[in-house]
Amino acid sequence: MERLPGFRDFFPEPLPSKDASSFDLRDFIFRKWRETARKYGFREYDGPPLETLELYTTKSGEEIVGQLYNFVDKGDRSISLRPEMTPTLARMVAGAERNYKKPIKWFAIPQLFRYERQQKGRLREHFQLNADIFGEKDPAADAELIALLIDSLRALGLSSDDFVIRLSSRNAWQDFFQARCADPSKGYEFYQIIDKMEREKAEVTSEKLKNIGINAEDVRHFVSEGKPTGELESILNNLGSRNLGAYVQIDYNIIRGLAYYTGPVFEAFAKGASMRAIAGGGRYDNLVKLISGGKVDLPALGFGMGDVVLADLLKEKNLLPSLLTAIDVFLLIEDESVRPQSLAMVQQIRDLGLITEYSLTPAKGDKQFKRALELQARFTVRLESREGRICALVKDLKVQQQFESEPETTATLIFEKLKQ
Amino acid sequence: MERLPGFRDFFPEPLPSKDASSFDLRDFIFRKWRETARKYGFREYDGPPLETLELYTTKSGEEIVGQLYNFVDKGDRSISLRPEMTPTLARMVAGAERNYKKPIKWFAIPQLFRYERQQKGRLREHFQLNADIFGEKDPAADAELIALLIDSLRALGLSSDDFVIRLSSRNAWQDFFQARCADPSKGYEFYQIIDKMEREKAEVTSEKLKNIGINAEDVRHFVSEGKPTGELESILNNLGSRNLGAYVQIDYNIIRGLAYYTGPVFEAFAKGASMRAIAGGGRYDNLVKLISGGKVDLPALGFGMGDVVLADLLKEKNLLPSLLTAIDVFLLIEDESVRPQSLAMVQQIRDLGLITEYSLTPAKGDKQFKRALELQARFTVRLESREGRICALVKDLKVQQQFESEPETTATLIFEKLKQ
Repeated sequence: MERLPGFRDFFPEPLPSKDASSFDLRDFIFRKWRETARKYGFREYDGPPLETLELYTTKSGEEIVGQLYNFVDKGDRSISLRPEMTPTLARMVAGAERNYKKPIKWFAIPQLFRYERQQKGRLREHFQLNADIFGEKDPAADAELIALLIDSLRALGLSSDDFVIRLSSRNAWQDFFQARCADPSKGYEFYQIIDKMEREKAEVTSEKLKNIGINAEDVRHFVSEGKPTGELESILNNLGSRNLGAYVQIDYNIIRGLAYYTGPVFEAFAKGASMRAIAGGGRYDNLVKLISGGKVDLPALGFGMGDVVLADLLKEKNLLPSLLTAIDVFLLIEDESVRPQSLAMVQQIRDLGLITEYSLTPAKGDKQFKRALELQARFTVRLESREGRICALVKDLKVQQQFESEPETTATLIFEKLKQ
Repeated sequence: MERLPGFRDFFPEPLPSKDASSFDLRDFIFRKWRETARKYGFREYDGPPLETLELYTTKSGEEIVGQLYNFVDKGDRSISLRPEMTPTLARMVAGAERNYKKPIKWFAIPQLFRYERQQKGRLREHFQLNADIFGEKDPAADAELIALLIDSLRALGLSSDDFVIRLSSRNAWQDFFQARCADPSKGYEFYQIIDKMEREKAEVTSEKLKNIGINAEDVRHFVSEGKPTGELESILNNLGSRNLGAYVQIDYNIIRGLAYYTGPVFEAFAKGASMRAIAGGGRYDNLVKLISGGKVDLPALGFGMGDVVLADLLKEKNLLPSLLTAIDVFLLIEDESVRPQSLAMVQQIRDLGLITEYSLTPAKGDKQFKRALELQARFTVRLESREGRICALVKDLKVQQQFESEPETTATLIFEKLKQ
């Protein structure tokens, strides 16, 4: 039986085939994400992988349904697997914010789903780091969030040679639009044109802009001038103080596709041959109000960073560490008469938290030792019966040293050597 | 907007309300599960949260559909959210086992789903530790797996006062059945009667047994005698060698409901007032063959332990630790003129991996200090400008010591004090 198209199985290393997905690689990325978010004081949360369809249509309109992994459940509810985390988060925060000190700094690593019928061979799920701040309208919050984004990528070994934060502003584009277009209802359409500008031919963009009464030359001048607004200047100065200035540049090509952004927006962008967005986010000061039906009004901002694009980039840049966990101890059982005592020792060593392996059934000594080497064991231990007394022979495979020890103290001895 | 019935939002501590689910409690349990599985040499994997409906009906028959969270997707496939992990695992192992050394020892912490229409107010999801061994038919593997189960519970602070492993055998019950019943097609029905025996009135059980030609007195005698089979004796001896004998008892009331078990089966059972199963598992030597359509034949065994029952038990036994993560450093910014230098220091301290917080916007000194205390900061740092030079005032809140330091060396100094 096969797994569903577009989904991944995550196998432990060493991988069974070249195209298999690695649990250990996923775990490596998640750990770096977590460590970084935690040192920034962000706290982790999670929500259900399923929500009412309404939660997504409220925010993005009915047209989003074509991309959702949605269905009708046994209770006749219209349901969707979550395509993004922000609506769930806004729902949670709207209901609970009274009980948390502001600013609320939270993160999550949800699995997200989409289902576009035409997209054969494309993944229908990925994982995403989501980090968000609620309750602070000052650009200091935007800077804190962008610093976290930069450090999440630095924690994985990426540097300013590998990526840049392209910083822009919905406000700046809104001012631009309002000064030039007579029809305010075309705002969303205008943002969509700007969002697609880099991927489209100049003539196509110009034509589209013309249709809503905007001069393409004006747009190009605005982008190439790249004059920071007051809030963007404040963000740049803040990041400069942190010595992260080299990671950021104003780039008005960025506007972000989602409808709900309101202020500064940004993307982490892979430099050089790769040329693609690794992460993106921005301010969405009106979303909590929308989701809560007007009950709660909280400024908010956040970003999302997916695991698939990121893992590809790390592979490309040769930044993957060795993903096979070395074990601490392999218990060699060459004399079956001491198996009970050997099991007792396995238990003692594991009780100290050390990763310990042994052969479940009788096996030749050299086969056991070979297995110990494959598992990159730091120590082997072998019990020997000498005139009725049990003696432990310990080998430190790192320094190629062997010594004898009393069975009672062997576990602690190894533990202490490992801590050195 | 509300979340779907039967699903949980997981909030960071301190919780916004008494009935809110705690992300930090979930994380505490997951961490203990992971640490224990890893020290036993188990490697982590994961699969898709969705599978074809067929994967579940093949194993358990069509009657399982009533309990599944199943639906039809946009590509007209019959799909189900996973109700358990074993079929996914068997599918993965059947496809990849050639490339892994045996025994394969794997674990996962999947979220599982069910949807029974009548069960209002009941959870429709939970998380489960799943640990499995493939490729070893010797009872030594059963003992290794049960030892892992015991240690997973011990790692959470539970002892032999709190739980017991009730060990039984499908083989023993099969022999019993074959020696007494003329109709072999009644085997599954018989197991179901035994499985429900403890929760049903004696007369009801007796009547049901009579209907398939089994004498209830025989059954009761078999249970009360509790004579271990050879394989169970071997498991008991093995666990005895590990000094885990006190955690296990033979108990033929256990047979496990699932159809696919073949050999030893067991449950971790809460003692005393609680009296409920915390975990359960056993051998399923035929499942890989079934799932792979006969292509792969591998002996297998595993157990599952859910987070909901376990968390309730830990609360009941007062075994929950403090779940609020203390931060390492709070940067006090009382003089706004040194905010840039303070941000630089925040960055330096975070670069060393320490959890660091500060006020994003100007705030009164005492308010900032109060926040530092709430976050259980170990250190506060405050920069002061003295005749054009910046000086760092560090307070160690644990030992109530204060000292001055050069800004350049402050981060490392704090880092070293924390490592002591």
